[in-house]
Amino acid sequence: MKFSMSHGAGGEVMQSLISDIILGNLSNKRVNGGVGLDDLDDGATIPFGDYEIVLTTDSHTVNPIFFPGGDIGKISIAGTVNDVSVMGAKPLAIANAMVVSEGFPGEDFERIIKSMDEVCREVDVAIITGDTKVMEQDKLDKIIISTTGIGIVKKGEVKRDSSLKLGDKIILTGSIGDHGVSLMSYREGFGFETDLKSDVAPVWGMVKAALDVGGVNAMKDPTRGGVANALNELASKSGVGMLLDEEKIPIKKEVIAASEMLGIDPYEVANEGKVIMGVEADKAEEILQAIRKTKYGKDAQIIGEVTTDKHVILETVMGGKRILEAPIADPVPRVC
Amino acid sequence: MKFSMSHGAGGEVMQSLISDIILGNLSNKRVNGGVGLDDLDDGATIPFGDYEIVLTTDSHTVNPIFFPGGDIGKISIAGTVNDVSVMGAKPLAIANAMVVSEGFPGEDFERIIKSMDEVCREVDVAIITGDTKVMEQDKLDKIIISTTGIGIVKKGEVKRDSSLKLGDKIILTGSIGDHGVSLMSYREGFGFETDLKSDVAPVWGMVKAALDVGGVNAMKDPTRGGVANALNELASKSGVGMLLDEEKIPIKKEVIAASEMLGIDPYEVANEGKVIMGVEADKAEEILQAIRKTKYGKDAQIIGEVTTDKHVILETVMGGKRILEAPIADPVPRVC
Repeated sequence: MKFSMSHGAGGEVMQSLISDIILGNLSNKRVNGGVGLDDLDDGATIPFGDYEIVLTTDSHTVNPIFFPGGDIGKISIAGTVNDVSVMGAKPLAIANAMVVSEGFPGEDFERIIKSMDEVCREVDVAIITGDTKVMEQDKLDKIIISTTGIGIVKKGEVKRDSSLKLGDKIILTGSIGDHGVSLMSYREGFGFETDLKSDVAPVWGMVKAALDVGGVNAMKDPTRGGVANALNELASKSGVGMLLDEEKIPIKKEVIAASEMLGIDPYEVANEGKVIMGVEADKAEEILQAIRKTKYGKDAQIIGEVTTDKHVILETVMGGKRILEAPIADPVPRVC
Repeated sequence: MKFSMSHGAGGEVMQSLISDIILGNLSNKRVNGGVGLDDLDDGATIPFGDYEIVLTTDSHTVNPIFFPGGDIGKISIAGTVNDVSVMGAKPLAIANAMVVSEGFPGEDFERIIKSMDEVCREVDVAIITGDTKVMEQDKLDKIIISTTGIGIVKKGEVKRDSSLKLGDKIILTGSIGDHGVSLMSYREGFGFETDLKSDVAPVWGMVKAALDVGGVNAMKDPTRGGVANALNELASKSGVGMLLDEEKIPIKKEVIAASEMLGIDPYEVANEGKVIMGVEADKAEEILQAIRKTKYGKDAQIIGEVTTDKHVILETVMGGKRILEAPIADPVPRVC
């Protein structure tokens, strides 16, 4: 076996790689009965007294490193803040390890750091420790940023991606495909003509609004593999299905147009500022309104509900039904 | 400014890069008054009730990825375990983010994971969360592993690298230069004829032995920049000097021979399984004996003491005195 691009793309090929080699060869995968590596959730937890420490990590590579709506710095902090958030914890601190290529311009580096700072200030999270290494120019292209986030939550309040309940309403906090489609459009050279830009943003404000209402059972941020992957993971790990109303799924006209032009499925590309939630039916409307009042949540929608089915079913705009499958491998070049 | 190899090499050039761009552009650098980013310690802390959470991160690149005495997997886990340890905390869990190059052989990947597991089992630390990404072959050479460690310690028991006290004895837990010199010998092609190998190992056992005795005031592991860098950082951050007896500093004959052949200074190259401690004078002998009983501590020595001087002074084997300076930049190609 040799690594191929599809191994890192959020689809089934990667899942099997993770399971087989990583999980199969590691002995210690959890601490004190918390959420562990083999739960394959957005993060892990360490139970500690009356609390649980939430820990999550990601290495960020993105091409190009500066793109409409953001850059690799913004995506590193937002991505990590978001993984802590969807575990139900307020993001508190970040550890930031960077590997930079020899010859990388100092002004680009500074721009990236400033961008990281902006997100940190918005969410009131601190970068408390870090590491910077330089690699030979012929061994690394530009920069890789690995961020690890930590949060603390009261015991029992961690939100899992496996705890959807029958009858839950599914909330999607905004339009799909913006990050992936805008990045690919930009790469293909026709991003300049549209307003298309990445949705990269910290979701903590929306998550907090929902948690304050109460009744949130499960959360996930639909990054690699898109909403198609996230919805299927939520459903399969919870042992349930979903019935979704495609008409309710927010998607921008420009995203539809660009997707058709690029020949890609906006359900399968990354979002970087959205959350999918499973919430108690009797709280759904109140949670929706609370999310809509936040900075990034005005387009939030209740897109469907949890069923006893074993699939994620889309009631299409045309009136038919289709199974929304998880992508086998990333259908497009890596965008996050 | 463009990044050059010396920026990442643990010397003064990197220090100024870190200070100027990273620290200057970040607003939130600590949480709840804990140890923060601008303390530039081996890790950070988050005070929490009667405890402090210790957090530390590192990106690991090493060439070659398999070398005498270890590999990039062993160095990733040991390095992170060691940074948590020298903060005075038992390492508890690790977050593991890997970026792998397209085409990287699965069997090498498996060997690396197994090697990580071995260190985890030895120290009883768990890898609780992770991320794996694949990068195009022309954009990354082989693999980068970014590991973040977490530990918990009672409030007030964190060990800083800035808290040496006048009169403290300095303990070095074993021979210097093994990692850096063996790696460079191996690269130059004459590593096969000697027993020279990296000292990469988890130091928690030695640290615990010392902490159990009590009287440890400061610790640091002499990685990038070698003992020359670590001793100077300890002294300057504590506002003191040191008088060291060169004769007491453990160094292997093969390391001296290879250093002369390579034209490098074994004081300035990385160690990956050693600790420098400043301990109360009246506890020094007891701590030394406790360390010597551990798996990696049999060559530990009291190498000198803390003085009011502003320099780290070496009393040489020949009877003279010389100032041991921190390296300006890595004197040798990157080895950790």
